[in-house]
Amino acid sequence: MQILNVELGDRSYPIYIGSGISSDKKLLSSSIRGARVAVVTNETVAPLYLKKLKDQLSDFEIIEIILPDGEQYKNLEYLNKIFDSLIEKHCNRDVTLIALGGGVIGDMTGFAAASYQRGVDFIQIPTTLLSQVDSSVGGKTGVNHALGKNMIGAFYQPKAVFIDIDTLDTLPDKELSAGLAEVIKYGLIADAEFFAWLEKNIDRLIARDKSALEQAIFTSCKAKADVVAKDERESGIRALLNLGHTFGHAIETGMGYGTWLHGEAVAAGMVMAADLSRRKGWLDESDLGRIRDLISRAHLPVGGPDSLDVDQYIRLMSVDKKVKQGKIRFVLLEKIGVALVTDDVTEEQLHQTLSACRGG
Amino acid sequence: MQILNVELGDRSYPIYIGSGISSDKKLLSSSIRGARVAVVTNETVAPLYLKKLKDQLSDFEIIEIILPDGEQYKNLEYLNKIFDSLIEKHCNRDVTLIALGGGVIGDMTGFAAASYQRGVDFIQIPTTLLSQVDSSVGGKTGVNHALGKNMIGAFYQPKAVFIDIDTLDTLPDKELSAGLAEVIKYGLIADAEFFAWLEKNIDRLIARDKSALEQAIFTSCKAKADVVAKDERESGIRALLNLGHTFGHAIETGMGYGTWLHGEAVAAGMVMAADLSRRKGWLDESDLGRIRDLISRAHLPVGGPDSLDVDQYIRLMSVDKKVKQGKIRFVLLEKIGVALVTDDVTEEQLHQTLSACRGG
Repeated sequence: MQILNVELGDRSYPIYIGSGISSDKKLLSSSIRGARVAVVTNETVAPLYLKKLKDQLSDFEIIEIILPDGEQYKNLEYLNKIFDSLIEKHCNRDVTLIALGGGVIGDMTGFAAASYQRGVDFIQIPTTLLSQVDSSVGGKTGVNHALGKNMIGAFYQPKAVFIDIDTLDTLPDKELSAGLAEVIKYGLIADAEFFAWLEKNIDRLIARDKSALEQAIFTSCKAKADVVAKDERESGIRALLNLGHTFGHAIETGMGYGTWLHGEAVAAGMVMAADLSRRKGWLDESDLGRIRDLISRAHLPVGGPDSLDVDQYIRLMSVDKKVKQGKIRFVLLEKIGVALVTDDVTEEQLHQTLSACRGG
Repeated sequence: MQILNVELGDRSYPIYIGSGISSDKKLLSSSIRGARVAVVTNETVAPLYLKKLKDQLSDFEIIEIILPDGEQYKNLEYLNKIFDSLIEKHCNRDVTLIALGGGVIGDMTGFAAASYQRGVDFIQIPTTLLSQVDSSVGGKTGVNHALGKNMIGAFYQPKAVFIDIDTLDTLPDKELSAGLAEVIKYGLIADAEFFAWLEKNIDRLIARDKSALEQAIFTSCKAKADVVAKDERESGIRALLNLGHTFGHAIETGMGYGTWLHGEAVAAGMVMAADLSRRKGWLDESDLGRIRDLISRAHLPVGGPDSLDVDQYIRLMSVDKKVKQGKIRFVLLEKIGVALVTDDVTEEQLHQTLSACRGG
């Protein structure tokens, strides 16, 4: 087991990474303050892991909250179902919420914990690669709005995160790839050496080699934790973590939540960001080739859907949180391993990229 | 004009108190960082003060969000209407929300600001006495749930609060009295001298004497700010501010939101707390008489509704946030000016108080 401490002053917390760690009853219990826990999970994950988790929580009074599975349920209506259950069971501020599932469950449970009675404890047990390397670090919680993704939420840190590599055994191939998109992102924005390591090990990762997965997850979480420690509330460098996300969110919203997996949309978005970076003269053709190649070897799309046209992208991107004073801000690559934020993109460059990067 | 600084480290903010201060264009503008403001108000307050406020905000792009008036709209559904407007207008993190109205508008706008894109600035212009002395200090924001009051929310501080005494000119008598309930509370929990001042000046306050109102508001806000500065997230002494509220919330929920004004319910709740304190042997009959008398002279109820019985109270109080490990915790009075939190109340004492304090 590896332990990574996310350093955020009095909101610091540990991430435990390893095989079978969600079966460590003592470790789990030590992270819970009160006598009651509410486990929030979904209909896909519950049959796989809920009983096992409940066995580890036998010292606590357990409330089960099982939501339907899917991004389309990540909204205020289903958030309110979590509140319904907590209030019906007369839960007070001493309840601990446990998120057992992927990013949707983590984001919703985190926001429910942030908002229930103005804040209760929560613990994350992310069961997808994407949520393990992304939402387990950084405290971003929230739900979608019909008109925009993650528009409603809070910055709220968990008390602890348990990343059990064994939960990846049951993850569909498509979702494993989606998680690799975020893993590749950390190499692109912060760590050229890690990018090179991924080029060597992508086949082991796709084959679910546990030691490769553990290393990739640890390195990814560490990269994100370093950024978040410097900029918890996303006023500066944290924005770099959004590489591929401005385009990606447009794809997700434009196609309807759930049609494209988040990681797939981000993968296509990263290729767009790389393409735009090449047009700015920062990346060369060979860099772009390496990026497209690695993403492709991770079984991820290297372009957006045919059905979204340039105007739709621009309209969708203009409601993104990354827009400042009306100008769309892009995270681009100066080179592999170094990202920056800029709004210095011409309309022509953007149109060329959006036209070129289709057919994903 | 008086200025009170609420000291909360990097979340500190000023409260400006005086006649006509919401017409101070320069002061208002200096509290806004971006180029856009969204004014959230209701159908009662808008015709009275919205135009005047907009005139002061002529340097900004203004979005108007007008909600129906009433506690029954303080829920996730109407919160979402605020988000709808912000997203439709493509508001980003640089928008400032301005709450123009009473406690419901302040609480909802504050929670909307806390949650919209995970946090934007907000300013409060409270237009009722209750919201001026209560919700303008402390950062409690949120909405009600069908099963409990203020169950969903955040601790989130405004950038500035403008308390314009002139807005009380249009406040209905009933609501002026409701605000006085909270004013009296500060005397009871923290300041025997202020309580004595109120006994002398209650008739001036009821007659809306501006200098008396300004003094009462300043003293109340200061009392609350002192408590909140010591305990922002309500882990300790801040609970004392809930004098009368455990009973009061039971009355509000039991009667249906909006039937009793919050201040009326708190007034009756404070008499119940005082009655229970007498049964504990802390207050004597004459203290109880002074409290009942002052509350009555403020035209407030000195008992709960006839239609709520003892069992209903107990059921309603057991979902309150003040419950810890299943025991109801009460804020009681050791003497006038000194409050404490206790769960050391016998079932008999509680039943006697609930039976005695009816017919409000």
